[in-house]
Amino acid sequence: MHWTVYLSGEIHSDWRQQIIDGAAALNLPVSFHSANTDHEASDAAGDFLAPQSEGFWRDHKSAKVNGIRTRKLIKDCDIAVIRFGEKYKQWNAAFDAGICAALDKPYITLHDEKIIHPLKEVNAEAMAWATTPQQVIDILKYTTS
Amino acid sequence: MHWTVYLSGEIHSDWRQQIIDGAAALNLPVSFHSANTDHEASDAAGDFLAPQSEGFWRDHKSAKVNGIRTRKLIKDCDIAVIRFGEKYKQWNAAFDAGICAALDKPYITLHDEKIIHPLKEVNAEAMAWATTPQQVIDILKYTTS
Amino acid sequence: MHWTVYLSGEIHSDWRQQIIDGAAALNLPVSFHSANTDHEASDAAGDFLAPQSEGFWRDHKSAKVNGIRTRKLIKDCDIAVIRFGEKYKQWNAAFDAGICAALDKPYITLHDEKIIHPLKEVNAEAMAWATTPQQVIDILKYTTS
Amino acid sequence: MHWTVYLSGEIHSDWRQQIIDGAAALNLPVSFHSANTDHEASDAAGDFLAPQSEGFWRDHKSAKVNGIRTRKLIKDCDIAVIRFGEKYKQWNAAFDAGICAALDKPYITLHDEKIIHPLKEVNAEAMAWATTPQQVIDILKYTTS
Amino acid sequence: MHWTVYLSGEIHSDWRQQIIDGAAALNLPVSFHSANTDHEASDAAGDFLAPQSEGFWRDHKSAKVNGIRTRKLIKDCDIAVIRFGEKYKQWNAAFDAGICAALDKPYITLHDEKIIHPLKEVNAEAMAWATTPQQVIDILKYTTS
Amino acid sequence: MHWTVYLSGEIHSDWRQQIIDGAAALNLPVSFHSANTDHEASDAAGDFLAPQSEGFWRDHKSAKVNGIRTRKLIKDCDIAVIRFGEKYKQWNAAFDAGICAALDKPYITLHDEKIIHPLKEVNAEAMAWATTPQQVIDILKYTTS
Amino acid sequence: MHWTVYLSGEIHSDWRQQIIDGAAALNLPVSFHSANTDHEASDAAGDFLAPQSEGFWRDHKSAKVNGIRTRKLIKDCDIAVIRFGEKYKQWNAAFDAGICAALDKPYITLHDEKIIHPLKEVNAEAMAWATTPQQVIDILKYTTS
Amino acid sequence: MHWTVYLSGEIHSDWRQQIIDGAAALNLPVSFHSANTDHEASDAAGDFLAPQSEGFWRDHKSAKVNGIRTRKLIKDCDIAVIRFGEKYKQWNAAFDAGICAALDKPYITLHDEKIIHPLKEVNAEAMAWATTPQQVIDILKYTTS
Repeated sequence: MHWTVYLSGEIHSDWRQQIIDGAAALNLPVSFHSANTDHEASDAAGDFLAPQSEGFWRDHKSAKVNGIRTRKLIKDCDIAVIRFGEKYKQWNAAFDAGICAALDKPYITLHDEKIIHPLKEVNAEAMAWATTPQQVIDILKYTTS
Repeated sequence: MHWTVYLSGEIHSDWRQQIIDGAAALNLPVSFHSANTDHEASDAAGDFLAPQSEGFWRDHKSAKVNGIRTRKLIKDCDIAVIRFGEKYKQWNAAFDAGICAALDKPYITLHDEKIIHPLKEVNAEAMAWATTPQQVIDILKYTTS
Repeated sequence: MHWTVYLSGEIHSDWRQQIIDGAAALNLPVSFHSANTDHEASDAAGDFLAPQSEGFWRDHKSAKVNGIRTRKLIKDCDIAVIRFGEKYKQWNAAFDAGICAALDKPYITLHDEKIIHPLKEVNAEAMAWATTPQQVIDILKYTTS
Repeated sequence: MHWTVYLSGEIHSDWRQQIIDGAAALNLPVSFHSANTDHEASDAAGDFLAPQSEGFWRDHKSAKVNGIRTRKLIKDCDIAVIRFGEKYKQWNAAFDAGICAALDKPYITLHDEKIIHPLKEVNAEAMAWATTPQQVIDILKYTTS
Repeated sequence: MHWTVYLSGEIHSDWRQQIIDGAAALNLPVSFHSANTDHEASDAAGDFLAPQSEGFWRDHKSAKVNGIRTRKLIKDCDIAVIRFGEKYKQWNAAFDAGICAALDKPYITLHDEKIIHPLKEVNAEAMAWATTPQQVIDILKYTTS
Repeated sequence: MHWTVYLSGEIHSDWRQQIIDGAAALNLPVSFHSANTDHEASDAAGDFLAPQSEGFWRDHKSAKVNGIRTRKLIKDCDIAVIRFGEKYKQWNAAFDAGICAALDKPYITLHDEKIIHPLKEVNAEAMAWATTPQQVIDILKYTTS
Repeated sequence: MHWTVYLSGEIHSDWRQQIIDGAAALNLPVSFHSANTDHEASDAAGDFLAPQSEGFWRDHKSAKVNGIRTRKLIKDCDIAVIRFGEKYKQWNAAFDAGICAALDKPYITLHDEKIIHPLKEVNAEAMAWATTPQQVIDILKYTTS
Repeated sequence: MHWTVYLSGEIHSDWRQQIIDGAAALNLPVSFHSANTDHEASDAAGDFLAPQSEGFWRDHKSAKVNGIRTRKLIKDCDIAVIRFGEKYKQWNAAFDAGICAALDKPYITLHDEKIIHPLKEVNAEAMAWATTPQQVIDILKYTTS
């Protein structure tokens, strides 16, 4: 049985790579997918399309192009990992979590103890809370074995 | 035709009351619902239930009790208004928006221009972006007339 | 048993009023709903919202505001009537028909014989093809009695 | 990750082939599918079935036979591209777009600037608007990489 | 709590009236609905619509007009009663039962012992098999009290 | 906003009445529904239907007749309360909880501390665990105010 | 693109084999599946299970065991072919058609002209009516090419 | 056609292995999956995650981690086998059966005659009741051939 895992959220640390490497080292039957994690490329995803836009509409156009990808990744995943870092608003991560909750996709949150309180609604629907990438790997190992 | 509107998000300004008053003044065929907006009561929603808990589990217990209410409010609404203020993480608002998106509930975001960029994924699925409660009232007036 | 009917499509003739009057004359247990049929007001539905926009984005903003209304009307209807006139593209009417087909909402098309051929896919999923408002009234009378 | 793309709409120019060739040149992990694009064969799709029919019923019979194919193509696709040309009613393209919208299938519209206005409802639910096949290829490249 | 009951199938005996009268005598909180039970009117339901048709297409047109009604009756019912008499094919009754099964609508079959065998697939998904209208009344009394 | 509550499980103590009385004393906007709680009548629910049966089939027939009622009660409820007592297998209560979980109906479990361990899967999907009827009343009061 | 076809209905002629052979001769990308077509084995499908049963319950037990298979075949198919012969009630075929209609599975009916009238409701939801196995092969060839 | 079978319930006898061995001996096109059947490991599934917990929350944390696995197993299965032994509450097995019923997954119960009565609601939605692993193998053989 193969498992598809969607890695959502923070893009400023190497948590994705740690999980991917850890799963590979254990030879887990798992595929990982992510939205575009290159911040600038993601922001510019719709720039080549008309109409040339600034501000709200530039963001709108790019977010929709990125949405083509994320919508499929969430629909096709068996498990999502939603990572919240210490900085930035990261509303897209909470948004992805809401979509997962509504579509009955089990998700694991990955965040520090400091932000437990503002994430309480997101965690209420999560299947697990991890504080380190290693714990995510352990959950995947347990789940897929 | 009656419309049910769910007001989600920021609880530190009177945006809810402004919208409710504006709709009442216009006699719009609209009912408004919200999660518990009393911060302390909301945080304590599960305190009377066993097991007595601190930290993560206290939040978990209360968030689940609150979830009984919000889940129905979202399922039963025709329109959601998702408000993001200038402070705090407000991940529960983005989480509600994600649920709305997945359940195909049309939602309006209400926020200042300053936070357009971090809300671009949330706005990509929104039906409208308002910057003032009056604009929300105008949308409700237009939609329900 | 009460029936809710959504009237979609052409806005340049009085077909809506004919159906509404005919149903009223027969005292049918039916409510009618429509998108905003005032063309200019519909095109301007989002003009009061930021950002001030022209061309594609102006249309986008207004179409989304109108979509709040039409999405509910289609979801809540028991029957849709989709009218195609002789002029204009009327892609919104065919678009509504597609939504109805996918949501399993029975719909009646109302159009002249001249445009049978380009509407063949739309009619393949329709429950009836009417050529006059009177025929729609007759179907409603038969269905709701 | 493999992506399935449904190409819907206009059959009088070579836009499909341009997209297919462009994707092949880039070696994208994409499969393309279309309804029967041979106009006469499509119109005659049900002619060999009883009862022998003319006019409305001939169209009906053929449209239903074609529907066996398009219904699966839409249900199985990850992305749809909906092309509107300058001529003809093309209501089947708008109808396909409506089905995609209701089934939450992300779609890209492909059309000239001249017809922005009549397509505003269709574009309000689209994930992107492209004006050239090359832009569609660019979106596919970005999305599937 | 009010219950809506859809009465489907045989139209040559007074089983519907017996059930309706029995429920009324007991003052059960139940509403009954049926397709048009006037055979000739039902067969002619689409005759006033173009194109004038004979044979297959006449039946097709009328069956679709009748389908507007039955589709809603099944979707809105809490319980269906599917009656099979001794004569005729009554494929529409078995067809309605299949729709009920797929939509998870609980249904009761009403038929004689002689036709148990050919109805075994229909009964495998039924919630009860009744042989007399009185038994249906008894089930409704038990269920709604 | 009115709330519908389904009370499922143990029938040997007066927990249902306590909750109903408590909600009435507080004038909560709540309706309560239950399966037939008369054990003998419930076991005999299908006895008047053919074929006369013993053992497995008698149980089967009665359970299906009871299922007509419970299926609607679960589908129509906003909240379920699932009560586990100290005795008996009560697999029907756990079965109801599973249906609630799959249909995304929020449920509260009501049971003593002694049976926490065997109910851990049921509680993992519950929104709250109560140990007394008073706590259920408190949750309903909080949720519906 | 591969297509899965479910062949439902009459078991007393070789229509299934004709379609399978015809598709094989054309090398169509199609797999065929059927319920157990051995009448006696199908009737006895549950005989080895307790409790030993006669009449209604024997049929019930076997029909349920057969239902494990047919439920998956319908859910997994892209196209169903529903065959009605001249003899027998064949309510299971109409029942399968109803399930297909509710699950939005396109189906083709295969029957003689003589039984058009009693099949009018079944045909109203069908995508095509064929009178010979060769016509079914032709539809599959057209659809899958 | 390949079949996926989910084996749920009792973990104190070798019924799973008997079914797996029997299917292998017959070369059936079947894959089997189970939740973690190591009782202690299952109870400890969440122990490595924060916060360190006892009692209710320890069970909660582990049950949720196990739920990541079981949720997918049920969603992906074609058939479930739900085993009830003579001892223990086994509410998780009845809970799984409820999920299967709501998701329309056909399931077979496997239990002794002694517990027919408390399982009558679970059996009312089952497709078959088996008393021995051999009977399950026989059903799988019949269904998949």
